[in-house]
Amino acid sequence: MKTLNRRIASEFLGTAFLVAAVVGSGIMGEHLAGGNIAIALLANTIATGAALVALILTFGPISGAHFNPVVTLSDAWERGVPWPETPHYILAQILGGMFGAVTAHLMFGFPILSVSLHPRVGVSQWFSEFVATFGLVSVIWGCSRTRSNFVAFAIGAYITAAYWFTSSTSFANPAVTIARALSNTFAGIRPVDVPGFLVAQLAGGAAATVLFRWLIPGLRERAKDTVIPHEREQI
Amino acid sequence: MKTLNRRIASEFLGTAFLVAAVVGSGIMGEHLAGGNIAIALLANTIATGAALVALILTFGPISGAHFNPVVTLSDAWERGVPWPETPHYILAQILGGMFGAVTAHLMFGFPILSVSLHPRVGVSQWFSEFVATFGLVSVIWGCSRTRSNFVAFAIGAYITAAYWFTSSTSFANPAVTIARALSNTFAGIRPVDVPGFLVAQLAGGAAATVLFRWLIPGLRERAKDTVIPHEREQI
Amino acid sequence: MKTLNRRIASEFLGTAFLVAAVVGSGIMGEHLAGGNIAIALLANTIATGAALVALILTFGPISGAHFNPVVTLSDAWERGVPWPETPHYILAQILGGMFGAVTAHLMFGFPILSVSLHPRVGVSQWFSEFVATFGLVSVIWGCSRTRSNFVAFAIGAYITAAYWFTSSTSFANPAVTIARALSNTFAGIRPVDVPGFLVAQLAGGAAATVLFRWLIPGLRERAKDTVIPHEREQI
Amino acid sequence: MKTLNRRIASEFLGTAFLVAAVVGSGIMGEHLAGGNIAIALLANTIATGAALVALILTFGPISGAHFNPVVTLSDAWERGVPWPETPHYILAQILGGMFGAVTAHLMFGFPILSVSLHPRVGVSQWFSEFVATFGLVSVIWGCSRTRSNFVAFAIGAYITAAYWFTSSTSFANPAVTIARALSNTFAGIRPVDVPGFLVAQLAGGAAATVLFRWLIPGLRERAKDTVIPHEREQI
Repeated sequence: MKTLNRRIASEFLGTAFLVAAVVGSGIMGEHLAGGNIAIALLANTIATGAALVALILTFGPISGAHFNPVVTLSDAWERGVPWPETPHYILAQILGGMFGAVTAHLMFGFPILSVSLHPRVGVSQWFSEFVATFGLVSVIWGCSRTRSNFVAFAIGAYITAAYWFTSSTSFANPAVTIARALSNTFAGIRPVDVPGFLVAQLAGGAAATVLFRWLIPGLRERAKDTVIPHEREQI
Repeated sequence: MKTLNRRIASEFLGTAFLVAAVVGSGIMGEHLAGGNIAIALLANTIATGAALVALILTFGPISGAHFNPVVTLSDAWERGVPWPETPHYILAQILGGMFGAVTAHLMFGFPILSVSLHPRVGVSQWFSEFVATFGLVSVIWGCSRTRSNFVAFAIGAYITAAYWFTSSTSFANPAVTIARALSNTFAGIRPVDVPGFLVAQLAGGAAATVLFRWLIPGLRERAKDTVIPHEREQI
Repeated sequence: MKTLNRRIASEFLGTAFLVAAVVGSGIMGEHLAGGNIAIALLANTIATGAALVALILTFGPISGAHFNPVVTLSDAWERGVPWPETPHYILAQILGGMFGAVTAHLMFGFPILSVSLHPRVGVSQWFSEFVATFGLVSVIWGCSRTRSNFVAFAIGAYITAAYWFTSSTSFANPAVTIARALSNTFAGIRPVDVPGFLVAQLAGGAAATVLFRWLIPGLRERAKDTVIPHEREQI
Repeated sequence: MKTLNRRIASEFLGTAFLVAAVVGSGIMGEHLAGGNIAIALLANTIATGAALVALILTFGPISGAHFNPVVTLSDAWERGVPWPETPHYILAQILGGMFGAVTAHLMFGFPILSVSLHPRVGVSQWFSEFVATFGLVSVIWGCSRTRSNFVAFAIGAYITAAYWFTSSTSFANPAVTIARALSNTFAGIRPVDVPGFLVAQLAGGAAATVLFRWLIPGLRERAKDTVIPHEREQI
């Protein structure tokens, strides 16, 4: 418990940088791409994937580098993060995400926050978020048995791909989704469309967790430290 | 044998995600690129290469992450996967690939399946598929002696390159080829053109397997676990 | 002390190559992109991120591969590089950066040096440099406990992302900033705008150093070799 | 000596694939980019860098994965490859490169060989080739002390960067240069311009070799296996 403050700060900071990368590169990409959305999304994709690699390597050893309530809940379900710590993690992720959006806006001279008008709704989009989060949690559980440092690369690579192969550009993260609702920019999402995304993300994460419990039977015992093995009580 | 169900599920799921990445990113890339095919193919390439890295790291420890009948046949030939398991692997890959095409179509609100009208035919294309698959199997056998986790990066990098240096954009995979025949999108191939691709792929894979048997004499004994070492009967 | 000459040469050479990569790829990108700044910046980004990976892997074992006065000062503050060696490192980095700019200019047939007219000024830009350098030093300290070779990939990935998510395109390095003032090209910065960038960079680096001293308590004792463990007195 | 045939075959095949990747992706990139040279070069860059990662991981354990007469000569100079084997290596690289150009042409339905009309001449270009090869050999010698598998990533990353930061697009390889003279495509070079490139490449490689002999004193003893440790007489 005595390291909980540090781990919460790590989740806050990591999620803040992740959202700053998503929102900031969306602004920059759209601004420079001269109307070609593919080039804007390519910049957004490369920045997000690369940021994930750097941030997971950086904050993984401190807090596990979840940055994502679905990952924290899945980890708690598999007896990783203790349930009483879960609300702390999730709150840190949500507040960190908002702080990241504010940071991106200030870096580009935009208003501190702005409500997104970007509609993202419909069965295809919800199914996309289900698939995207199902895949993300699959990658996490599938890699947790291999050497931990590769998880950063696997997740960065997965999100790089998923930005393009889902119609929703793969939010796959409730904290990031909420933060993006507060940014009326390239990466935004209308607040009214957030609940549909969150439900799909939670369902996708739950399905992958159940599936991998069967696919890798001993996982629960061996995977105490989701994403990256980290020290608890020891630092 | 008692883990065969899990390994088959792993091959099914991994191939499904691979095809969903190929087809989905093709749809998204073409949709956004405003007519510039180079940018569409660049998005398609980055998504496919990154997906391979993530998927091989994820499913490798479970089933070897073949996702490809040519790889499974080559592995069986080198006394990896037991011959009686081979049809299970291949069927899982083909059905998984189709399921992935369906998934991609649903994510983008397209009809469940559609027959491709994209012609891919001719000696140059067949030779390209021969070279592409020859290279893919070479990379697999060449890396199987080095540390296993790097295989994911080697294959992701190889396919990233091969999308651009072959005129056929390097299908190099019968299961993926069949699935792409059922998608009338950027990544599709006319059903009538599938057999030519399959023959070329099988020939390329066979040639590389024979060559590497000579290039690395002890390979057959040491390479029980193609692509990524995985546990058999032990999980 | 007897290896100091070699370490200084390594910092000189590495920073020279880094600046040559930044300036040279900016020239090439702008020249070929036909007015599309997003594509020019994409080329500039990929070249810089990739150069960092190669250069840190190459020069890390010799001098720690700082290439950056902020990193050297942070390292000295954490009792890494001895304070008396710090001026040698920083001077080598600044002169190396200038030499890199000259090299880039000669490779493209430009005048040896030219004063940049590219304005980069204002609170948003300064805040961007604070965030960019805060993030860079965070990545360095966060990764210094994990396996050292991954630091090269973490930093390359971080700068790749930061080029896009900051409005200043993330200089994050006083030596590189000074060198870019001497290049009236895509990557340049007006000399009059340099001091603002330097102050923001130093503040960002100091903030991250203090934060990580709290986040990872034992860091000071364990992290003698910043960026990449290197030999002192032993070569 | 008894493995020399295999090592020569490995150098032939690896260089052939490298040139096929360079030439083939140049053809594809130019064909699809609709006149935007930056996008064509971006495709060419990504394909070449990724191919290098895959090919060095694949052929490194067999022959060291030089694929480059400058690397072989530098290695022999540092007492790696025995001098009597050097001509075999170099001939295999040159013939392999030509075979790769032929392969690329056949994959795209072009004439088997064609003399390039692409002028690449002048002091800036020669200086670029000097710098490019100096950097390449620096990366090789700098990384040879770290874990060998990272060399593949360092070299892939270096060439990715150097394509953009040199005005010559960084051939940095006599065997590849000769092969590209036989391809009147995007990646070609006029035969009359080849000697200037070769001289600059040899000079750059020699300078880096001498420099790193001083920078890393024990290198000569420890670096028997350039690029990637490989087995001699043992396979």
